[in-house]
Amino acid sequence: MNAQATLKPYVIGLDLGGTNSVFGIVDARGEIKATTAIKTGGFEKVEDYVAASVEALQPIIEQVGGIETIKAMGIGAPNGNYYKGTIEFAPNLPWAHDGIVPLAQLFSDSLGIPVALTNDANAAAIGEMVYGVARGMKNFIVITLGTGVGSGIVVNGQLLYGHDGFAGELGHVVMVRDNGRSCGCGRTGCLEAYCSATGVARTARELLEKTDRPSLLRELKTEDITSIDVSIAAGKGDELAKEIYEFTGHMLGEACADFAAFSSPEAFIFFGGMTKAGDLIMEPIKRAYNEHVLKIFRNKAQFLVSGLDGASAAVLGASAIGWEIQ
Amino acid sequence: MNAQATLKPYVIGLDLGGTNSVFGIVDARGEIKATTAIKTGGFEKVEDYVAASVEALQPIIEQVGGIETIKAMGIGAPNGNYYKGTIEFAPNLPWAHDGIVPLAQLFSDSLGIPVALTNDANAAAIGEMVYGVARGMKNFIVITLGTGVGSGIVVNGQLLYGHDGFAGELGHVVMVRDNGRSCGCGRTGCLEAYCSATGVARTARELLEKTDRPSLLRELKTEDITSIDVSIAAGKGDELAKEIYEFTGHMLGEACADFAAFSSPEAFIFFGGMTKAGDLIMEPIKRAYNEHVLKIFRNKAQFLVSGLDGASAAVLGASAIGWEIQ
Repeated sequence: MNAQATLKPYVIGLDLGGTNSVFGIVDARGEIKATTAIKTGGFEKVEDYVAASVEALQPIIEQVGGIETIKAMGIGAPNGNYYKGTIEFAPNLPWAHDGIVPLAQLFSDSLGIPVALTNDANAAAIGEMVYGVARGMKNFIVITLGTGVGSGIVVNGQLLYGHDGFAGELGHVVMVRDNGRSCGCGRTGCLEAYCSATGVARTARELLEKTDRPSLLRELKTEDITSIDVSIAAGKGDELAKEIYEFTGHMLGEACADFAAFSSPEAFIFFGGMTKAGDLIMEPIKRAYNEHVLKIFRNKAQFLVSGLDGASAAVLGASAIGWEIQ
Repeated sequence: MNAQATLKPYVIGLDLGGTNSVFGIVDARGEIKATTAIKTGGFEKVEDYVAASVEALQPIIEQVGGIETIKAMGIGAPNGNYYKGTIEFAPNLPWAHDGIVPLAQLFSDSLGIPVALTNDANAAAIGEMVYGVARGMKNFIVITLGTGVGSGIVVNGQLLYGHDGFAGELGHVVMVRDNGRSCGCGRTGCLEAYCSATGVARTARELLEKTDRPSLLRELKTEDITSIDVSIAAGKGDELAKEIYEFTGHMLGEACADFAAFSSPEAFIFFGGMTKAGDLIMEPIKRAYNEHVLKIFRNKAQFLVSGLDGASAAVLGASAIGWEIQ
């Protein structure tokens, strides 16, 4: 065991996003020794994607001493299935949007090392547990606030995969049961439809269209408004923009109150671009949580923002899956 | 180990309910060798409750060969905290309604054997896993439909306790966010306020008062109607009563759809008096679940009714906690 550990000091982590695929070679302390990246799209077939990835990896693999120094590879990917090593029906991946793609096996065949795969939010949760603010915690929930709302749930120190590998889809609990917003999943009223970056922009457009209230956001074309614009306006004291974050945070806090009734985590950890709004979003989350949660849970849970740098957190999380392979 | 197992072939299980405390001495195969019971209430102090319990236990302990044959005791109790062995602020227990009672320690001191404790729904979940329909399952949720709605969640073959021992309060996820019914927990709109036996009776009273529709239930005093009356009327084909079960089952199915997004269990197992309504309640649960759940979960989970006899399931579940003590 030790001999092998000495011989193979690295794992490859792949953060497979809708736009970019970022690779890192990581050591046991979580130091990223080398990185490279390719565009995720632009390939019709998964085989071409894997071939392009391996080509991009070659120079950085050589840089750390060759494939013999690499123990395994871990992949964090949308709709990733840990049990099967597959990506299943991922709407944003041209080579995986209408089927089941055995990505872990393809990389393993091509590189000759073991490969494990999980969804991106689960990878973020493992990244937090191994290298981030969740070190030492055994029960916590990571909520990723990006284009969508994702989650990685850790209970008893283990990632919660469920019987089929798809547990932890907290962006798709229903928050508005009647006349809810349509969601990308084909249903209505999901948390994600309101509290993702896209949801925040939607809230902004709705408020601007339904009211005459003044706002800095009116200087922008309504259809171009993003959550970043809302954040900037709120930072300048814009009341309407602040109200949008208040609304978003309140709903997230109510949702977390339900999540507490499920797994009673010691912390909720928020991850992703929207956390840059800081207290604008975190304060209403905490307030709504403590207002709405069962009395036995009140004022117990911590509300934290990921301390890991966005890009490297995902790569580190993916790499941590690699270390876990037996 | 084997020598000890031979010497101590039994555990005591205690199903501690609001009304009755039922004790059973159970062997490793789940056979209940002897039982006894006392009333739970009627004691001001927990010490008196424990003394009365131990007195009632003496004859059945002698019957199986004395305390030397007993490995441990397991207790299933409302508001039971597994980590601390305590009952905390249990509204229906006169000797534990306004404080934290170290019940496991008190029994252990009195009997001279290890004692573990968990809440009653968790005990039911362990009972199903060790002796019931969940044998061999690693990811499932038991939902108890009684005076309240309780739950025991098993993930990766382990009961989910959360960081403080209070995980699995699924009766208190919020199903109606605006103008919801008041709930015993002090909040509004909880699943329990609608789908417990009490909730079903409330739905009946509301429908009878708000409409003029004919129903067999009108032959009863409105304030005396129970979920059993509704079940009997529905069994006779009463349309209003059938609609009440339809409403209740539909809400349970929607709730289970959210629970799937959390832990993706392979089965939901229903337990308690209300399951006697059979397909009247189970059909709308399944239908609403598959209508409302995320596509990746559709038609995957089983919906089962506990096969264990009500009274013995709780005692068996409690006893199973005893076997788990190291």
